[in-house]
Amino acid sequence: MKKPRNEPVVIQAIERIFRAGRSSTLPLALGDDAALWRPSRGKETILTCDWFLEGTHFFREKHPAGAIGWKCLARATSDIAAMGGKPSCFLLSLALPQRFTGKWLGDFLRGLRRASRSIGCEVAGGDTTPSERILISVTVLGEIHPGRAILRSGARPGDLLYASGTLGEAESGFEQLRRQHGAPRTANAALRKHLYPRPRLELGRWLAEKRLASAMMDLSDGLSSDLPRLCSGSGVGARIETGLLPVTSEANRHQALEFALHGGDDYELLFTVSRRKAELLPPHVRGVKLTCIGQITREPKILLLDEKGALIPLRPGGWDPFRDKQAIR
Amino acid sequence: MKKPRNEPVVIQAIERIFRAGRSSTLPLALGDDAALWRPSRGKETILTCDWFLEGTHFFREKHPAGAIGWKCLARATSDIAAMGGKPSCFLLSLALPQRFTGKWLGDFLRGLRRASRSIGCEVAGGDTTPSERILISVTVLGEIHPGRAILRSGARPGDLLYASGTLGEAESGFEQLRRQHGAPRTANAALRKHLYPRPRLELGRWLAEKRLASAMMDLSDGLSSDLPRLCSGSGVGARIETGLLPVTSEANRHQALEFALHGGDDYELLFTVSRRKAELLPPHVRGVKLTCIGQITREPKILLLDEKGALIPLRPGGWDPFRDKQAIR
Repeated sequence: MKKPRNEPVVIQAIERIFRAGRSSTLPLALGDDAALWRPSRGKETILTCDWFLEGTHFFREKHPAGAIGWKCLARATSDIAAMGGKPSCFLLSLALPQRFTGKWLGDFLRGLRRASRSIGCEVAGGDTTPSERILISVTVLGEIHPGRAILRSGARPGDLLYASGTLGEAESGFEQLRRQHGAPRTANAALRKHLYPRPRLELGRWLAEKRLASAMMDLSDGLSSDLPRLCSGSGVGARIETGLLPVTSEANRHQALEFALHGGDDYELLFTVSRRKAELLPPHVRGVKLTCIGQITREPKILLLDEKGALIPLRPGGWDPFRDKQAIR
Repeated sequence: MKKPRNEPVVIQAIERIFRAGRSSTLPLALGDDAALWRPSRGKETILTCDWFLEGTHFFREKHPAGAIGWKCLARATSDIAAMGGKPSCFLLSLALPQRFTGKWLGDFLRGLRRASRSIGCEVAGGDTTPSERILISVTVLGEIHPGRAILRSGARPGDLLYASGTLGEAESGFEQLRRQHGAPRTANAALRKHLYPRPRLELGRWLAEKRLASAMMDLSDGLSSDLPRLCSGSGVGARIETGLLPVTSEANRHQALEFALHGGDDYELLFTVSRRKAELLPPHVRGVKLTCIGQITREPKILLLDEKGALIPLRPGGWDPFRDKQAIR
């Protein structure tokens, strides 16, 4: 009979690194059948979960364990930002090979803890099991005042379309990572954005509190894939202009445009604002640049006004894991 | 360029089969960046997530898709029962090969929907992505009055130890399934318990409402693995008696005892009751049999009084996925 191990090393590592105890909002975290969380009075709870799988969303050889820990929470929390909410706590489902339960796990959990502290989202609980590949699913709970969540369905013809930050920067960083051998040695802004994205939580909350955005979502799969989802949710179309896109300066113009249109993992916010309210929108919010990139149209088509003045249909070239089996991100 | 597919077939199937709309507790489910859930006023939220992985927790060739759908929610909800709570909604993280997005997915989702309706736990959202194996993680939210959750940490020396239902029955069913070729043809009570477990939600709530149990957990990995967790949580030991165990009649005595001690997947409740309150405990609650199987001791050892009257240490022989790499469940 093999040696019994009732508290697997993974759970011990999680409890050691997170040292979760009782807090006012989490009277019980880790170590029991389930966690207990106290929702704020009068708030709605925002719920989201996000896969982060080896070979699909990251490469073990390319992505540092700490970046995987950071990013699995950051990207899940980006959905809370996209509703205009405030993150509260998360659950970690982690499956990994036995041989990664040492240094790799420690580095992963410290990256996750850094994200948890930076974002203000406490660990509530989770589940661990062994598997041949590293499998991660993160569930995040956030909160918002009832009626204030910004949905994908609120865009109206004539609304202006905005994006935060720089588009395609993370893709440019991933391109650098692909070209390097093994794990990254240095990280410029683009690579940092790919490895350690920062969800636009402050901007999302600001837009929800001021009731400025009519529709919103986060850009995870690329503008050309995500914009049709927002338009479909609202039953509208959109026309964007190449010349308006806030592209990265870390690539040549052609590539920067490709990245901005089709690159994923930016976790910027894409939102619409009525023309009347657009006047109230400053060029920056909490240090994040806002750029008008086009407008919402009645006709349910996604059109791109290119640099030669031609209006062409924008086809999804961003990342769809069920389509792009080879295009690992 | 490949054909774009913005609404993957998996999401369409989920939306078609669940037809999730707006309800009073779920003003927004499926189809946006995140879901919106309205917690009941003055209640605490119970949070839990559970892996259910092909090759680790089920075999695709052995387990019908509908049973996989049922069981992934039922077993996650069992953790809500183990706290004495009421389930409210769930999130589904589902990764599967493209070739299973047809009939297999439909059968899986219909099994999941049956569990969802039977348990009273609505779908709130989820995430889907392709993978070589079928990967499932389910997050369940439940509710309970503040202070009423029954933790693992409340057992005191002298408390009596109880189990609900029959122990080892699911393991006996799994044993039948292992012996059969391919998928099951007929299902007796034991096999049904393995394939379609019913979390003891009514019993859990009854015990919490009546404040009868001092500690509680659900039996998922087997009594000999789970009892030490409850004892460790409470800083106590336990002595159980072979002769008291509610064993299955679908195996010979020796095997039935092995199943009851070490078999997993029962999703029965294991709980402790002070001697004073034990008088108030009926033999059945909501049709579920309650059996006193031993008592809590001050000395932190797990001992078994066997049928010959010998007191022997009970070693974990239940299921620990990080230990039992071969013992697939």
